[in-house]
Amino acid sequence: MSGKVYLVGAGPGAADLLTLRAARLLSAADVVLHDALVQEDVLALAPQARKIAVGKRCGKHSTAQRFINKMLVAAAHTNQVVVRLKGGDPMLFGRAQEEIDALSAAHIEFEVVPGITAALAAGADLKVSLTQRGLARSVSFLTPRHGAEEQEAEWLRAALAADTAVFYMGAGQLEQIAQALLTGGKPAHTPVAIVENASLPHARQWQTTLANLARFNVDAWAGPAVIVLGEVVATAQAEEWAKLQHIS
Amino acid sequence: MSGKVYLVGAGPGAADLLTLRAARLLSAADVVLHDALVQEDVLALAPQARKIAVGKRCGKHSTAQRFINKMLVAAAHTNQVVVRLKGGDPMLFGRAQEEIDALSAAHIEFEVVPGITAALAAGADLKVSLTQRGLARSVSFLTPRHGAEEQEAEWLRAALAADTAVFYMGAGQLEQIAQALLTGGKPAHTPVAIVENASLPHARQWQTTLANLARFNVDAWAGPAVIVLGEVVATAQAEEWAKLQHIS
Repeated sequence: MSGKVYLVGAGPGAADLLTLRAARLLSAADVVLHDALVQEDVLALAPQARKIAVGKRCGKHSTAQRFINKMLVAAAHTNQVVVRLKGGDPMLFGRAQEEIDALSAAHIEFEVVPGITAALAAGADLKVSLTQRGLARSVSFLTPRHGAEEQEAEWLRAALAADTAVFYMGAGQLEQIAQALLTGGKPAHTPVAIVENASLPHARQWQTTLANLARFNVDAWAGPAVIVLGEVVATAQAEEWAKLQHIS
Repeated sequence: MSGKVYLVGAGPGAADLLTLRAARLLSAADVVLHDALVQEDVLALAPQARKIAVGKRCGKHSTAQRFINKMLVAAAHTNQVVVRLKGGDPMLFGRAQEEIDALSAAHIEFEVVPGITAALAAGADLKVSLTQRGLARSVSFLTPRHGAEEQEAEWLRAALAADTAVFYMGAGQLEQIAQALLTGGKPAHTPVAIVENASLPHARQWQTTLANLARFNVDAWAGPAVIVLGEVVATAQAEEWAKLQHIS
C-alpha cells in the first residue's frame, strides 16, 4: 500500500503566494522533496516533514531527474503524504511529466497542485498586464535552447509570433536571445523588462529595449530572472518606470 | 486620503487555489468588487466585506469597463482596503491595465496579487505538463478574435508557432479556431483537450484531434473552458485518458 504524491507548485518565491491547498498539504506532509530554489520560509510551512533537497541548478539534468523519479517512488512506498515541491507551477518548465510518468509506471496515486508561475509574478511586480486589449492578445512563455541553430528556430518562431514573450531560464543568454530576435525581424526598439527574484523583497527590475538587451552585464544576476518582451512593457505607469533601473 | 486597492487573482475556481495573500486580503477587505465568475465559497473568505458584482460575461465590454474603473476609484475614496477580485490571474485576459491606468490617474495606491490562471489549472487537471523536454519548449496563451480575417492572423500566428497553445474564451468559436489552424497548416491529427470549469468538482474534460474539434456541440458548455492544443496532450497517461470524454 503506497502513499499519495502531490506535485505542488511553490510559486515564484514569496511564501504567501503559495495556494491555500499547497499550504495545507505541506502542513500534512510526511516528507517534502523540494527544488533548490524553494525559499526557507516556504519550507517552514511543513514543520513536521522530513525535507529533502533534490533540486538541480544548471547542468547534469538527465541523471538528476532519473534519481529524483526513483526517490519519489521510494518515498511513496514508505510515507502517506509525499509532497514534491517545485518552484513556480509544476506544469511549466518544471519537468513534471517525467515524474508523472515514473509515478504512473509504479502505480502510485498522485495529484498536481498548480502554482503561481514566475511570469505572472513578474507582471504583478511590474504592474503591467501581459495581455492588453488592442495591444496583446497572445503571450508566449518559452525557454531558449542552447546549441545548434536549427534548434534555435523552435523557440524563436514562438517568441516572434506572440504579442508578449516571457523567457524563462534565459538570463545567461541575453546576447544570443537579443541577436536571434533582431535577426528574426523584431524591432530594435521593442521594450524589454527583466525581473529577477519576482515577488521577493530583494527583487530587482530593469527596463531597456531589445537593441540594448545584449549589453546587460549578466554577472549581475543574483537569482532566477524572467525577461518580458513586447509593447505591453511600455505601458507601465511613469511612477513604476521611474523605479526601474535602465540599461542603455 | 484614499485607501489602497488590491487587484487580486481569484484563481481558476476552487477556493483553496487562492493564494495565502489573497485570502488574507479578502479577510481584511472593506469592500470586494468581483467578477461574475468568482465562486461563492471564494467570496465567503471575505465575510465582513461589502461585495459588489461588477463582472461582465459577453458583450458590452467597453462601457462596463469604464463603469468598473469609476467604481474602483470611488471605493478607494471611502474605504481603507479595496479588493478587486478577478477570475484567474489579473494580468492574463483580465483587463487589469485599464483599471491600473484609472487608479494611477486618480493617484490611488494599488498592488497586484497574482493568481492561478485557468491554463495551469487545466494542465493540473489533465495531469499533462504544458512544456516537456524534447516536445514543447514554448506555450502560448491566447484568445481568438471575432471578426475580420486580418485580425484573425494575429492570434493564429502565435497559435501556430508555439509548441503548446492554450485558448481562453474560445469555446464559442471552436469551428472557426479549428478551421483557421487547419488552413494555417497545423496537422489534422494534432491532439486537443478541452477543460471546462478547471479545478472545480463539476469540471469536465474532453479529448479529440484538431480535425474533429469543429464538430463539438458548443451548446453543451456549462462554464468557462480552455482549449489545450499540442503534442503534449497525447502524453497523458492511459488511465487519465480513459476518464476523458471522446469527441470524434
